Formats: sequence, structure tokens, C-alpha cells
Amino acid sequence: MSFTYNRLNKDDVAVLFVDHQAGLLSLVRDFTPDEFKNNVLALADIAKFFNLPTILTTSFENGPNGPLVPELKAMFPDAPYFARPGQINAWDNADFVKAVKATGKKQLLIAGVVTEVCVAFPALSALEEGFEVFVVTDASGTFNPITRDAAWDRMSQAGAQLMSWFGVGCELHRDWRNDIEGFGGILGKHLPAYANLIQSFSAQTK
Amino acid sequence: MSFTYNRLNKDDVAVLFVDHQAGLLSLVRDFTPDEFKNNVLALADIAKFFNLPTILTTSFENGPNGPLVPELKAMFPDAPYFARPGQINAWDNADFVKAVKATGKKQLLIAGVVTEVCVAFPALSALEEGFEVFVVTDASGTFNPITRDAAWDRMSQAGAQLMSWFGVGCELHRDWRNDIEGFGGILGKHLPAYANLIQSFSAQTK
Amino acid sequence: MSFTYNRLNKDDVAVLFVDHQAGLLSLVRDFTPDEFKNNVLALADIAKFFNLPTILTTSFENGPNGPLVPELKAMFPDAPYFARPGQINAWDNADFVKAVKATGKKQLLIAGVVTEVCVAFPALSALEEGFEVFVVTDASGTFNPITRDAAWDRMSQAGAQLMSWFGVGCELHRDWRNDIEGFGGILGKHLPAYANLIQSFSAQTK
Amino acid sequence: MSFTYNRLNKDDVAVLFVDHQAGLLSLVRDFTPDEFKNNVLALADIAKFFNLPTILTTSFENGPNGPLVPELKAMFPDAPYFARPGQINAWDNADFVKAVKATGKKQLLIAGVVTEVCVAFPALSALEEGFEVFVVTDASGTFNPITRDAAWDRMSQAGAQLMSWFGVGCELHRDWRNDIEGFGGILGKHLPAYANLIQSFSAQTK
Amino acid sequence: MSFTYNRLNKDDVAVLFVDHQAGLLSLVRDFTPDEFKNNVLALADIAKFFNLPTILTTSFENGPNGPLVPELKAMFPDAPYFARPGQINAWDNADFVKAVKATGKKQLLIAGVVTEVCVAFPALSALEEGFEVFVVTDASGTFNPITRDAAWDRMSQAGAQLMSWFGVGCELHRDWRNDIEGFGGILGKHLPAYANLIQSFSAQTK
Amino acid sequence: MSFTYNRLNKDDVAVLFVDHQAGLLSLVRDFTPDEFKNNVLALADIAKFFNLPTILTTSFENGPNGPLVPELKAMFPDAPYFARPGQINAWDNADFVKAVKATGKKQLLIAGVVTEVCVAFPALSALEEGFEVFVVTDASGTFNPITRDAAWDRMSQAGAQLMSWFGVGCELHRDWRNDIEGFGGILGKHLPAYANLIQSFSAQTK
Amino acid sequence: MSFTYNRLNKDDVAVLFVDHQAGLLSLVRDFTPDEFKNNVLALADIAKFFNLPTILTTSFENGPNGPLVPELKAMFPDAPYFARPGQINAWDNADFVKAVKATGKKQLLIAGVVTEVCVAFPALSALEEGFEVFVVTDASGTFNPITRDAAWDRMSQAGAQLMSWFGVGCELHRDWRNDIEGFGGILGKHLPAYANLIQSFSAQTK
Amino acid sequence: MSFTYNRLNKDDVAVLFVDHQAGLLSLVRDFTPDEFKNNVLALADIAKFFNLPTILTTSFENGPNGPLVPELKAMFPDAPYFARPGQINAWDNADFVKAVKATGKKQLLIAGVVTEVCVAFPALSALEEGFEVFVVTDASGTFNPITRDAAWDRMSQAGAQLMSWFGVGCELHRDWRNDIEGFGGILGKHLPAYANLIQSFSAQTK
Repeated sequence: MSFTYNRLNKDDVAVLFVDHQAGLLSLVRDFTPDEFKNNVLALADIAKFFNLPTILTTSFENGPNGPLVPELKAMFPDAPYFARPGQINAWDNADFVKAVKATGKKQLLIAGVVTEVCVAFPALSALEEGFEVFVVTDASGTFNPITRDAAWDRMSQAGAQLMSWFGVGCELHRDWRNDIEGFGGILGKHLPAYANLIQSFSAQTK
Repeated sequence: MSFTYNRLNKDDVAVLFVDHQAGLLSLVRDFTPDEFKNNVLALADIAKFFNLPTILTTSFENGPNGPLVPELKAMFPDAPYFARPGQINAWDNADFVKAVKATGKKQLLIAGVVTEVCVAFPALSALEEGFEVFVVTDASGTFNPITRDAAWDRMSQAGAQLMSWFGVGCELHRDWRNDIEGFGGILGKHLPAYANLIQSFSAQTK
Repeated sequence: MSFTYNRLNKDDVAVLFVDHQAGLLSLVRDFTPDEFKNNVLALADIAKFFNLPTILTTSFENGPNGPLVPELKAMFPDAPYFARPGQINAWDNADFVKAVKATGKKQLLIAGVVTEVCVAFPALSALEEGFEVFVVTDASGTFNPITRDAAWDRMSQAGAQLMSWFGVGCELHRDWRNDIEGFGGILGKHLPAYANLIQSFSAQTK
Repeated sequence: MSFTYNRLNKDDVAVLFVDHQAGLLSLVRDFTPDEFKNNVLALADIAKFFNLPTILTTSFENGPNGPLVPELKAMFPDAPYFARPGQINAWDNADFVKAVKATGKKQLLIAGVVTEVCVAFPALSALEEGFEVFVVTDASGTFNPITRDAAWDRMSQAGAQLMSWFGVGCELHRDWRNDIEGFGGILGKHLPAYANLIQSFSAQTK
Repeated sequence: MSFTYNRLNKDDVAVLFVDHQAGLLSLVRDFTPDEFKNNVLALADIAKFFNLPTILTTSFENGPNGPLVPELKAMFPDAPYFARPGQINAWDNADFVKAVKATGKKQLLIAGVVTEVCVAFPALSALEEGFEVFVVTDASGTFNPITRDAAWDRMSQAGAQLMSWFGVGCELHRDWRNDIEGFGGILGKHLPAYANLIQSFSAQTK
Repeated sequence: MSFTYNRLNKDDVAVLFVDHQAGLLSLVRDFTPDEFKNNVLALADIAKFFNLPTILTTSFENGPNGPLVPELKAMFPDAPYFARPGQINAWDNADFVKAVKATGKKQLLIAGVVTEVCVAFPALSALEEGFEVFVVTDASGTFNPITRDAAWDRMSQAGAQLMSWFGVGCELHRDWRNDIEGFGGILGKHLPAYANLIQSFSAQTK
Repeated sequence: MSFTYNRLNKDDVAVLFVDHQAGLLSLVRDFTPDEFKNNVLALADIAKFFNLPTILTTSFENGPNGPLVPELKAMFPDAPYFARPGQINAWDNADFVKAVKATGKKQLLIAGVVTEVCVAFPALSALEEGFEVFVVTDASGTFNPITRDAAWDRMSQAGAQLMSWFGVGCELHRDWRNDIEGFGGILGKHLPAYANLIQSFSAQTK
Repeated sequence: MSFTYNRLNKDDVAVLFVDHQAGLLSLVRDFTPDEFKNNVLALADIAKFFNLPTILTTSFENGPNGPLVPELKAMFPDAPYFARPGQINAWDNADFVKAVKATGKKQLLIAGVVTEVCVAFPALSALEEGFEVFVVTDASGTFNPITRDAAWDRMSQAGAQLMSWFGVGCELHRDWRNDIEGFGGILGKHLPAYANLIQSFSAQTK
């Protein structure tokens, strides 16, 4: 039974940020706030860096769920943005799906809050429609590791690939020579341990 | 190899509470007592809210295993209730299976104590008979994370879908507009962090 | 060097709830939301049960910190309540201190959010003024176990006694015969594992 | 794709204890010594209780690996016992395999030390030969949770079912009425929390 | 400021088992049931071995708290035994205190359930009366590590010494030559890892 | 024995950053890199905000230990800066001590890498000379929680007060009205969960 | 659906060490530095012991990523060594793939830093080309357990087998009699707990 | 109340290794075997490097406790070595105490297995006799973190200082210039993360 490596290809990918809202973020407890903020913004920087079509959506943003985190809004001012009137599964929102399909991409990177709902539901819907789905696990958060593990299992069994923002960035970049400065800048900004290496290196080779 | 999203549909679902008995609950150590009580009652509230046919069963309730937790008994006074005379796997009790089939539903939400026995055994039996099985992982408890992980793996490999009560509620509700107050009330009651959002929102928008 | 057991005496105690506000609660990560809500309300039930003078205070409740949790407001409608205009240490608010002293009690139970500030600061101030201070550790929350441990150490070295709501209740009650039903009711409500014992016992002795 | 529940059937099962030796046990760090000893002896009691054909084997027992734990030796004095002269995978020992096949059983319960070697290797070999393999995960131990998780994944992907001693006992017993005293005795002996239930029950119903 | 090593001396010690009752044990979550049972019985074996005067007490043993664990009752059939009619702090029971004082010992080993109440309260009372108090931390259990840590801090600041059953046994025994077989037997029974050493040693030196 | 609350007073405080160097940071494992970077920069922002005299020092910065983290260098361009030629305890460097004393402050906030050396050694030296020492525990890092706990105990027993950057900021600020915007800005920048509250509040009160 | 046990066979195996570089190692946080160093060198010793063709590769070794760890360089002085000019996935480097294929082996042991990139990418590429891939999980490291778990899931679903260095060694060795001294030497060197067994055995059988 | 910094001074220190025996090491579970071996040998290297008088002792080394770990024996061939005939507290062995006193040192570094017995007992005895005691916490091991925490508390309250091998080395060395190569070599050997820094530095400055 042969295996095909469905590898992220920067020309085939769209990114979906689902419900990263200021209120909902207080529900996320499987990451510390520092880590989670860093992971989400790292994914955003990757989307920018590779010019990936990016779609934003929120749920009830005028209520307790709160507004989309302002950094995302600021980074993607021209991205399609859907403040869903009520659909929990973003894929149940026809406009959202239309926008996804309009990108013409067959690989979807999905991140959201909370993992078992805002990520898993559209992921399963997209898989059913034949998309290749890549879950950005560390830019997606939920109540605790138990619900996360269950959600991961459900998506993985359905054929989604579980990744991290760092893996996503590296699989898209493929070769450092494509832009050493640019990609290194993202790593330095979001991986303090890598920034330390760069600083030591710079100091020692001066 | 195409994937079909077997999605919870409130018209297709029955709920099985298996052996949530006062004595057996002292065996549950993969959740704190506070969390577990909250999770089980949240699932019960969801079953009520969506009017899902619900079936209760216990094992040896007149012995050390103790009575069904009184909240469940009170919430589902008219539900079919089977005090099994000895069968460990609820599915080995003909009356129980008959009641399940009498609901006419093909999707089963199963929760129970302990996970690797009272949940896994009927889950595997139901899968063999062609039901779609959804395990409510956080309303099911056991001795420790190791036995839980093993039980999850066995059920997942057999085709059961692993969910949480929050995911169940959201997948059934589909759209907030179906009943904002009602569904929000359940979340506010069982997710203190969400209740805080509602309270801040109410105060700030007064 | 002889030791005196400064034991909680229900005639000598006042209770201070400091900054249990809907917004600030989202900062608490050293307890799960379920556990923390339960612990705070258990302490409140104890304060009610023993008719302890209780004082409420908040910080900037009309801003992002959010309102006092509504359950506390509802349980102590007549308690002195100080919405501090800016002082971080409640003890820097003269009205608050006046109210504390007006109780005429020399033992103070303090709980709050977050531990190293809203609890530790008034605790240290009160110790300096000669009060006996009892920190209700599990009704006080903070960012993570590291900041909690540091705050505990600072308060303990200063002479505060570290307790839990269960210990507080038991030390105040002294003898079950003072009111078996009443005190047992609090335990049954806030300790699900104890409620299970009661239910099994009731069922088995019928 | 239909699912068949390969359920443990007491007439179809043989039990393999692989390398539970006094020396090797010092390598087991994914359980505390108390827990692991209890789990292994619980499985042994189950094997005895159901009269399951049981096979013992050791590796280099006259060297640092040490002797088979004396309790197992004492409980199964007449069981086939293979002190392997050097084969690491017990299935590479022709006498051992011959004994397994001589039981005429098609379901194998395997437990051993360490999980990724002494359990996984014979499990994979037996699967290849068409046996149904059930790993008793909590009667098998290894260096740490990471190696355990990897070993579980390898066996699960190959078709082994991951169980716990408690699940094994319950799946074999099927119905308490087959022998309430006997089976309850095993649980009371190996589950202190269950023993407590029995004791409270006995006291309260006197 | 000179330090005096208040060292356990087998002629100066009495042992107090406080509220190790079948029901209350279900509240203990800072140890697994296997570990905790082992620790309590190890302390009991040590008390027997050194013929230490031992006092048993329970709280409401005819109610949900349940009976004293039967092993303790069986091991100390002639020990003073106080089923307290209501006092939470055993030291508030005059008969209990009288029995403690009747032993004529000035060093008290205290273990109980739960730590912050049944252990801490009599420990603090005894310290106030000038006893040397040694808390057997691992034969004492409570709801979680947070309440345990707070209770330890309170007792330690008051002058209690925190020990473990193993430390207690060794400090009492002083010299293996006093009875190698006897003391080794206790270790072999309650420390499986030590039993393994003994078995390997025996096998290898045959 | 009366207690004096040695409270941080912004006119009495100097801040010491000891050995936060790019290479040494790779040794810190009791915080994630994201958390630790955030904590150190939060303390730096607090030092700036309150105009506290700040002193920087490094150890062998031209070797493997690497340069001072560039953010600190940039934030305090005019601060006394001591690249120690070899002294491990910064207090053994006469210039450093002279600079500390030149500030004329009696309260010292100390943070550094690693905790048991670069923090504990100067902390103990400063205590001996009569300074009030406040350890900023979460802006200090080390190999693991065990070495951290030992180091904390050593410093606490010597009279140092254990704090966190958040507690430091709040104890210095005393009253929000001193500068709501400024202090809120620091919290919003370094506490993502607090930033979320601010964003929800702003959105909801528009 | 029959299962074939793709078992490591020492004549069919090549080993790939991917990016174990001094700088990158500071990113590894799912193992302690002690453990990880030991695991990597244990795999190296196994590769040597069985004379497995071994291939080394690094990424940007003249930059912040740092040099290959010197022990690996020293142990495999004649191994093919590829300092990749920029390809992140080693399999995108034609020379590397050519060297892998030149070994003529169909089973690949892969270890590297970090797991979700340097291990997962070539593992998936090799699976696509029909190799049998065995991931040496504990000689591969990454940022945290979450990214590790996601990476494991991706590789396992693709058909890679997850192993540990100890499992690899044992599956290759098959029978202790092939070389007791040699293989025991590796275990004694890299498993301190096993070394202890050997030392006790030697002492006791003298 | 003034504080004196009792600082390790290489001319005032003796080192005691108590019961690091091959058998007893299997009891140590609060460190992984890799970490613990590394910590003990690091302390030994420090003792050698500073030529500190070192004393070795074992308990029943011809029985199950096993021989002193061979590395220690090899490193200190001429050190006083006491195979105690039965005393559990090494300080109860007159020869051992005589040897300690013969060193003429007033500062004692103590490490051993297990912490609450082999370390705590002689530590408390030495404190009583006026020695300054420094416990090397990470070169001392025991059954679990709970017994460790209790033992630490007992020793700390008695006046012992809790340290780690790294802190010990640094406090003794005082100034890198005393021997950069020598001391750096110890760190590089026992701190893999530091070795990586050295390797990167060397590579980058070539």
C-alpha cells in the first residue's frame, strides 16, 4: 500500500485563522498565554512571508467572545474576513467556504480556538470535500490536554496531518537559500532560543 | 480513499450513561472530582437541551458500586433505566440493547465509568453492529491516564470517534441562532471561564 | 522556644475577599476554572455558615478587570464592599482597613486574585499591624505554580498561616455535633467525592 | 468497512509473562514499584482465576537480569517455563512458540519487561502468525513514558489491542453472576479504592 | 544559635493513626491508592516491629466516613481505640489525649487522613503542649498537592518534623545488627524495589 | 515577635541584572524560552518605568557564555555595566559593589542566570551587608525545578524575599492613579491574558 | 488483512543522523540535556557495533546552527558527511539521497533535531520512495512534547515505525549469544540502571 | 537580626559520599538514572579538582545493597573508606566521625542515597556538633519527590544549606581566572548544554 507524501507547497496553500478572539483566548489552557500568543503570531508571520492567501473568521465578535486579536487584524488588513452570524462550524458559512474555494488552493492550514470545535469541525468538513488539511496544532488551543488529545485523534483518523508552526514554515521554505535573512528573521523573532544562537554567533564572529 | 464526516445530527443521536454510580466514582482518578462532576452534568444538560433519547444503566447498584448519581436520576426521570443484574458489558444486557435500538437512532454518545470497561465494551459492541459511536471522553473516567490512553486507542482503532462534551454540544447545536440563550446558558453553567466572559460583557455593555 | 497554636476561633475571625473579579479570573492558571470556582464558593459558604463578618473589595471594576463575581455579590448583599479607586494593596485603602478594624476581630482569613499581589500585600500589611493572618491558599489564584510558591514563601516567612478552605471550615467547626446537617451540607456541595460517600451511605442504610 | 469485535473469550486465551525478572524490574520507571508489582500480580491472579494456560519465560536469569519474580514462580508451578539461552524475542525461541501453539488458543495476552522489546517483539511476531494479540499495558513496564508511547504505537498500528489488567479481567468475566465472590476478591485485593467500597458497604449494611 | 537533633528514640515514641477510614480514603488524591495503602501499612508494621504504643482513632465511623481500615484494626487489636463522637481535632477528645499522655512518651508519630485537618490539628495541639511531633508525610493523604504543601508549611513552621515511613523506620532501628532479618523483612514487604535486590542477591549467591 | 513589612519603595530600590547572556540562556530549563524572555523584559520595562537605578553585569561575555541579551543592552544604554573578568559572584567584583552602593539604595531587586549561582551568591553577600534583598524569581532561571527549589530555600532562609516581576511592579506602583496608562501598558505588553481583557473591554465599550 | 512484521535486520539497515548540531541542540526541550546526549550516543554505539552504514548531515554548520556534535564526527570519521548548503529536508539534497541509496539498504533508522522537521521530512520522503522507515524517537528531539506528539502522529500514519535506541539495539542483536560482552557493554555504558545490575552481580558472584 | 553568609571555602571543606551503592541506586526515582549518575560524578570531579578531603562509606556492601559504584572507588583510591558493619546513620560509626574530624574542616558537603536517611541523619548529627552542613541535593536521591521535599524541609529547618553540584563548584571556584581550563572542563563534561556552547564558540572563532 503505497504512501504519497502530501507535502506543503507554497503555491498550493491557503491559511485559515478561526476564532482567535480576545474573549475565547481566556478558555485556552493547554498552552501558557505567552506561548500561545507567540505561536499564533508566528503562524501569521509565516503566512505573510510566503504570501499565502489568508482568511479570517470570528464567531459573535460583538458579544462575550470578543474581537479578533488586533495583531491578526493589523497584519491581514485586506484578507477576506467573516464575522459569522451564528454558524459554529465555519464551513457551514457559505461565504467562508466560497472564499476558501476562491483561493484555488487544495492545501489548507487551519488553526483556531478551541481545537475540538473551531478547528476540528471545518477540518473534517474540508477533508470530506477533498482538501488536504494540515492542522497547526500549536496555534490552536483548548481547555486542557485531554480534549486536545481527543480532537487530534479525531482529525488524524480522518486524514488530517498534524503539524506545528515551525514545521509548517520549514516545509514551505524548503531551502534556506530562498531567503536566508527573511526566514531567519521569523525564527529569531519567535524562537528565543534560536535568537540566542544568532546573537552568540554574531558576537563571536565579529 | 474518500472520507465521510459522520457528523453528530441531533435527530440521529441517543445518549448512553453507563455506570456513573456513587461508589464507582471513587475509582476515577484521571480527572479531579470537581472536573468530572462538571463534565458529566454538562453532558446531561446537553442531552436534555436537545431532547436526545437517553438511557441510563447501572451495575450492581445495591452493592458497593453504589447508586446512580442522584443528579442524573433526577434529570432523566422517565428515561429507560437498567439496573443490570450482572452483565459487565451493558450491551450483553438484552433489555438495554433493545432500548437502544428502540430509539431508532444510529449515532450513539457513550460516557461511563470506568472508561476501558463500561465505555469501551459497549462501544465496541455497538460498532460491530454498525452504529456510529462517539465517546464522550471527558464524561468518562478511569484509574489513571495510562489505562485511559490504552482504552482510547482500542476504541479509536475500531472506528469510534473521540469527543468532549463541549465538542458534542457544539456539533449538535450547529448554529447559535437556533437558541442563543439556551445554549449559552449551558456553557455559562459548565464553563466558569465562559461565565466570566459573559459577566464582564454584561457589566461593560450596561 | 515555646509554640502557641493560633487556632481559628469563629468568634475572632473576619473574612476578606480581594479582587475575585470576572476579568481577573482569566489570569488564574494554577487551578482549573472548575476547581477554583468551587474553592472560592466553598469559602463563601463557610463564611456564611459561621456568620463571619465578611468584607468584599474590587479593583477598577468598571474597567477590564471586570465586576465582582456575581455569586459573591449575591451571597453577601450587606457586606462592606469597597470598589477601590486605585490602591493595589487593599490595605492602602483607608475605608477598607477601617472596616476590617470595625469588625473587632483579630484573625483574618484572606483570599484573592492574584496571590502574590491582592493576597500577599494586605496579608503582610495586616501582619505588621498585629493581626493573625490565615491565607486561604486554594481560594487564591495566580499565573502559575512558580509565582504561587514564591508568594507563599514570602507570606509564610512573615508569619502568615497557609490553609485551605477545607481546613478553615474544620478548624472553625471544631465538633460535628455543633451542626451535623449544616456542615455536612457544605462538604457535600463542594466535595463531590464526599457527596458520593453520603449517597452510597444513604442508599445502603435505607 | 465493517468492524469485528475480537473480544477476549476465556476459552480462547493464553497468557504470556515475559521477563518479569528481579533485576530487569529496576529498569521500569513508567510505573512506581508499588503500582507495577500490583498490576503484574493482578494479571497473574486473573490468569489463575480463569484457569488460563500460562507460559513463563526469562532471559539470562542466572546473570544480572536476575530470577523470575518469586510470586509468579509460586503461582504457576506447573506452567511451561522457558529460561531462554539468549534469544531476545521470546518468539525466536522454538520451544516457547511450540508451547504457545500447544495451548491451542488463538488469543494471546502478553505482558513483560521492557515494553518495547520483551512485549513488542513477540507481539509483532504473533500478529504476523495470525494470533489475536492483547497487550496488558499496565503489567508491562519500561524506561519512561516516551519509549512506552512509541512501543504502543508500533503494536497498535500492527493490530494489537491495548488493554489494562482490569479491562482484561472484566472482558473475560463477562457477568458478575459467574462468580461474584471470586472475581470481587481479585478486585478487592488489587484495587484498594474498591476494597474501601466493599468495607464501607459491609459495615453499613451490618 | 545551637541546634539539637531531636532524634526518634524507640523508647520515647508513640504512634497515632488518625482517621484512616474506608470512606475518607476516597478523598486522598495526592497518592495513588496502591502507594498510599502500602505506606500506611508500612508504618503499621514499623509500629509493631518496635512495639511502639499505638493509638487509633476515627471520626463518625458509623456514617459515610466508613470504618477504620480493617488491616489496622487487625494489627492492633489491643490498642486504645477512640471512635470520636464529633471532635474534628482528635486532641479535643479528652480520652484520646489522656491515652496519649498515658503512654508516657514525649515523641509522637502522627499520620492521618486528611493531612491539613486530621494530622495538622492534633500535631499543632501536641506541639503547643510540648511534645516533639514527627509527621509521617507519606502515610498521610489529602485532596491534592496544593493543600498538602500548605499543611506541611503550617506544621513545619510550628516546629513539627516532616518524615517518611522509611525514614522513621531507619531512625528507630539505628543499627541493622539489632535485627537484620526482621527489619529487612519490613523493607522487602513494602519496598518492591528493595525486594528485587534481595531476590537477585539470594539467587546470585546460591 | 513583631514583623516589619519591608515593602518595595520606588525611591529605595536598585535593580541588578546578572548574567542574562545569550549563551547562558540555553542552560535555563525551568521556564520555556518564550516565558523566560517575557519575564526578563517585563522586569526591564518595570525598571525603566520607575526610573530605578539599574546595573548590568556579565561573566566572560567574549567566550561561550555569549553577549548580554541585546534588548537589555538597548534598554539601559547608560546603566553601569560590568563585564566581570572572572569573578563568579558579582559581589566579588569591587566595581560592581561600588556601583551598587553608589545608588544609595537599600533595597535590591536581583535577577539572573543561573539562579543558584548568579542570583544566590550576590543575594547572600548583599544580605550579609545589610541590604534588603528581593529575588525576582521568574526573571531568574536555572537547570531544573530541583536546583531552583534548593536555591530559593537557601536565599529565603537567609532573609531574602521571593517575588515575581508582576508582584514587583504592583508593589512599586502602589496606586493605579499614579499612571494608569503607563502601568497598564506594561501589563498589556507582558501579560497576553491581560491584553485580551483590555481588548474585549475596549471593543465592548465603544 | 494480514500483517507483516518489518523487523530490523542488521544486513538491511542504514542509519541517518540528521542535524545533531551544537547550536540546534539548545532547541531540544523534550529531553533533559543529559538524557538526550546519552540517547544519541547510544544510537551511535549501536550503529558502530553492528557496522551499519551511517550517514551524517548538517544544515548551515558554519552559522548559528553550529558544528556537528564532535562525538559523532569522531565516531564515524569515514562516514559520508553532507553539510547541506540550504535544503531543510535532507532528502532534497541529491548527494544525500544518492549516498543513502548507495548503501543498498531498504531499512532506514532516522534520528535528528528537530523531530518535526529534520526527522519527519526525510522520513516521509523515504516512505514515499518505498523505504522501511524506523524513527529513533529518543535520539530525536524538539521544542516540547506537543510538537513531538504531532510529529509522531504524522510519521506513524504514513507508515513509519516508532522505536527507541534500546529497542533498535535489541531488534538488531536478536540473540545475546551473538556477542554477550559487546552488546552488554553498550547497555552498561548507556543504561546506568543496567550497569548497576552488572556491578552488583559481579560483586555478588565473586 | 544580622545574617552571616557561611560561604563554601575550599580550605574549609570536606566531602562525604554516603551509600552510593549499585543496589541502593535502584531505589532512586526522583532523578532519571542518567541525570543522577551525571550529578554524582560531577560532584566527585569537583572534589578532585579542589583536592577536597573526601570520605566514602557504605552500608552492608556485601549484601543486596551492593558495592560502592566503581567510578567513585576508582576516583578516590586513597580516601578513607568505611564499610559500616550496621549503623544506618554514618555518624553513629565512630571511625567515620573520627575521620571527618581528622580532616580539620568545619564545612561538610554531604550527598547520599537515600536522601531522608543516608543524607539527613548524618547531616543532622553534624549540625548538632557545630559543623556547617551543605547538602548536595542533586547528588542525593530518594524514592520520590514527596519524601525528598520532607527531607529537605527537615534539614533546612535545622540549619543545613541546600545546594546543587553546580552551585558547589561555583562557590568553591570563586574566580574563573583561578583555572579556566580546569573548571571549564568539568562543566563541559557534566553539562551537555554548556559543552554545546563551547563547541559552537570554538567552531565560530576558528
